[in-house]
Amino acid sequence: MIETRITEMFGIEYPIIQGGLQGLGTSRLVSAVSEAGGLGLITAGSYANKKDMLKDIEKARSLTSKPFGMNAAIGIRRPMDEFIEGAIEAKVPVVFTSGNNPHQYVEQLKNNGIKIVHVVPSVRFAKKAESIGCDAVVVVGYECGGHPGQDDITTMMLTQRAVQELSIPVIAAGGISTGKAALAAFALGAQGIQMGTRFLTSKEVGLHPLVKEQILKLQETDTVLVKKSIRKTARVMKTENALALLALEESGAPLEEIMPFISGDSYQQLIYEGKLDKGVMALGQSIGLVNELKTVNEIFEEIITEYNEQLDFLYGARKSPLKTVF
Amino acid sequence: MIETRITEMFGIEYPIIQGGLQGLGTSRLVSAVSEAGGLGLITAGSYANKKDMLKDIEKARSLTSKPFGMNAAIGIRRPMDEFIEGAIEAKVPVVFTSGNNPHQYVEQLKNNGIKIVHVVPSVRFAKKAESIGCDAVVVVGYECGGHPGQDDITTMMLTQRAVQELSIPVIAAGGISTGKAALAAFALGAQGIQMGTRFLTSKEVGLHPLVKEQILKLQETDTVLVKKSIRKTARVMKTENALALLALEESGAPLEEIMPFISGDSYQQLIYEGKLDKGVMALGQSIGLVNELKTVNEIFEEIITEYNEQLDFLYGARKSPLKTVF
Repeated sequence: MIETRITEMFGIEYPIIQGGLQGLGTSRLVSAVSEAGGLGLITAGSYANKKDMLKDIEKARSLTSKPFGMNAAIGIRRPMDEFIEGAIEAKVPVVFTSGNNPHQYVEQLKNNGIKIVHVVPSVRFAKKAESIGCDAVVVVGYECGGHPGQDDITTMMLTQRAVQELSIPVIAAGGISTGKAALAAFALGAQGIQMGTRFLTSKEVGLHPLVKEQILKLQETDTVLVKKSIRKTARVMKTENALALLALEESGAPLEEIMPFISGDSYQQLIYEGKLDKGVMALGQSIGLVNELKTVNEIFEEIITEYNEQLDFLYGARKSPLKTVF
Repeated sequence: MIETRITEMFGIEYPIIQGGLQGLGTSRLVSAVSEAGGLGLITAGSYANKKDMLKDIEKARSLTSKPFGMNAAIGIRRPMDEFIEGAIEAKVPVVFTSGNNPHQYVEQLKNNGIKIVHVVPSVRFAKKAESIGCDAVVVVGYECGGHPGQDDITTMMLTQRAVQELSIPVIAAGGISTGKAALAAFALGAQGIQMGTRFLTSKEVGLHPLVKEQILKLQETDTVLVKKSIRKTARVMKTENALALLALEESGAPLEEIMPFISGDSYQQLIYEGKLDKGVMALGQSIGLVNELKTVNEIFEEIITEYNEQLDFLYGARKSPLKTVF
C-alpha cells in the first residue's frame, strides 16, 4: 500500500489504525487488526479497571505477536489514570488519547518510552497537541462516528489543513471505510488512516449480531448528531432512541432527563445484548458504504486491493505529462 | 491531468468546472475558466433579463472560442424560463441546473441538442436527476459554499455513494480548491470536479477587491450555515451580518425580518460595493486553503501541478505490489 512515517513509527505494515471503540476495542478485534498488518487499539473505556485491561492485553498478545496500542478517552466518562498506568506496566508501544487535552500524561508516557497520539477535531487542537509533545495526531472530520467537535469541518478540509500546519504526522479519520476513501486521505496528505465504523461490521468485533445486521442495512443518511446540549457532540446510529434523545435536547431538557439515553448501562444493553431501543452507539456516515460482514483480514484485503486498483487507474488515466505543462 | 467522460462530454481539456456564482459568473470569469481548459458557466441569476445575458454570452465568445455552459438556479429567486430560452437561442452546449428539480426543461433542452447537468446534495436527488434524463450530476458535499441540502453528507461520502448508484458521470463539489483535493475527488470515483469558492479569489472574478482581500484571510472555520429556517440552507462567509441573521433565525423570526439580510440588493452591495456589513455570500470551507489572489490560468496551473505531483508521490511511495497480495 504505502510506507509512511506512521508505518515506520509503529513498525506496522499498513498505515491503518483501528479507532477507539468503547466496549468493543478488546483483544479479539485488536489482535485481528494488528495481525492483518494494521494497528489495533485496546480501548480503556471497555474495562472496569486496570486489572481487567491488563488481563485482556495479555490475551491479545497470545493472539498476535505484532504491536498494538491503547486508547484512552480523557474526561469523557471515567478517570484514566489507572489505565495509563496499565499501559505503562504492559509496555504498550503507543497510547492514543481522545477527548480532553492529554498534557498530564505526556511526560509520564514519554519517560516510559511510549509514543502518544492525540485525536482532535480541529486544526487548533492539533497544533496544541503538537506543542505539548504528541508524536502524531488523528484528525476526525465532521462525518466521523463519535465526537466530531464543534467546528463541523470535514475530513477533506481538516486533513489538508492539519498537514499544512503541523510537523508531526497526521492520521485522517472520518468517512473512511473503503480503499477509495483511503486513497483520497493519502492524496490529501495524511500519513495514516483510522477507521472505527468499518470495524463495527467485522466478524471479530464483539458487537451483538442484531446490531451488526442492522447497521449493514443503513445508508449514509442514517446517523445523527446528539449530545450537542452537553457540548459532547457525538455522531451516532439514527435509532428511535437517538431521535428521542435529540428531541429532548432540543426541548432544553436537563442532564438528568438525558442520562438514561447515554448511560453506560443502556449502551451495554445496546452493544452486547442487541437491544436496539436502548442507548446510542457511535457510527460514522461511512456506514452507507458497507454492506457485508467480513473478517478483519478480508476488510484489509478489500481496502488495499481497491486502493491499489484506483491508484493504478488514476496513474494510467493521466494524460501525457507534457500536456499539463503550461 | 485526466481524461474522463466529462472532458469527453464537454470537449474540454481538464475536468474542472466553474460553479454557478450569482452575480459573478459572467463573461470575464467564464471565458477565463474555459480558456484555461475547464468549463465556465454563465450564471443566469447574474442578469436582469435574457437580453442582458445574451449580450454577455456574446462578450464571452469574443474572449474565448472554447465551450462554456450556463447555470440556472431553479426556484431559488426568479423564474428561469426566459434564461433557459436564452441558453437555447445562444446554443450553449450545456445547462447546469441547481435548486429544484429541472424536469420542466429537460425535453426542451434535449430537443435543442443541449446537455443538462443537475446539481444535487444527496444520492436520492442524484438518482432522481438521472431518472428524468440528466446527462450528469454534480454532487455537493456538506462543506460546499452555497446550498448543501438538508442531509449534511460530506463530499467524501456523497461522491462515492453517487458513483455507486448512478450510471451517468458524477462531478464532485464541496471542499475542493487544491490539487490534492482534486486528486481525492477522482480517487473517490468522480469524473469531474466543480469549484466555486476557489474562483472567488481569482483576479478575473468581478467580486469587489475588499471582499477578495477579506476572504483570503479566512480560515476553514469562517463559514456558517444560514437560511435553515426557510429550508434553503446555505453555507456563507461568517460575517457579523451572517451571524446576526443566524441569531434571528434561531429566535424564530418571520421571513420579513430575515429578508433584509438575504435580499438581492444587500447581496449586490456586498459583492459589488464591498460593503462587508451587508448581505450574505456563499463560501465553502475550502476558503481555509486559499491565501493568494491568482489568475484563473495560475489557479489551473497550480491545481494540475499539485495533482500530478501528489499522484506521482503516491504511485512512487507504494510498496511492491507483491507485498499487497494476501
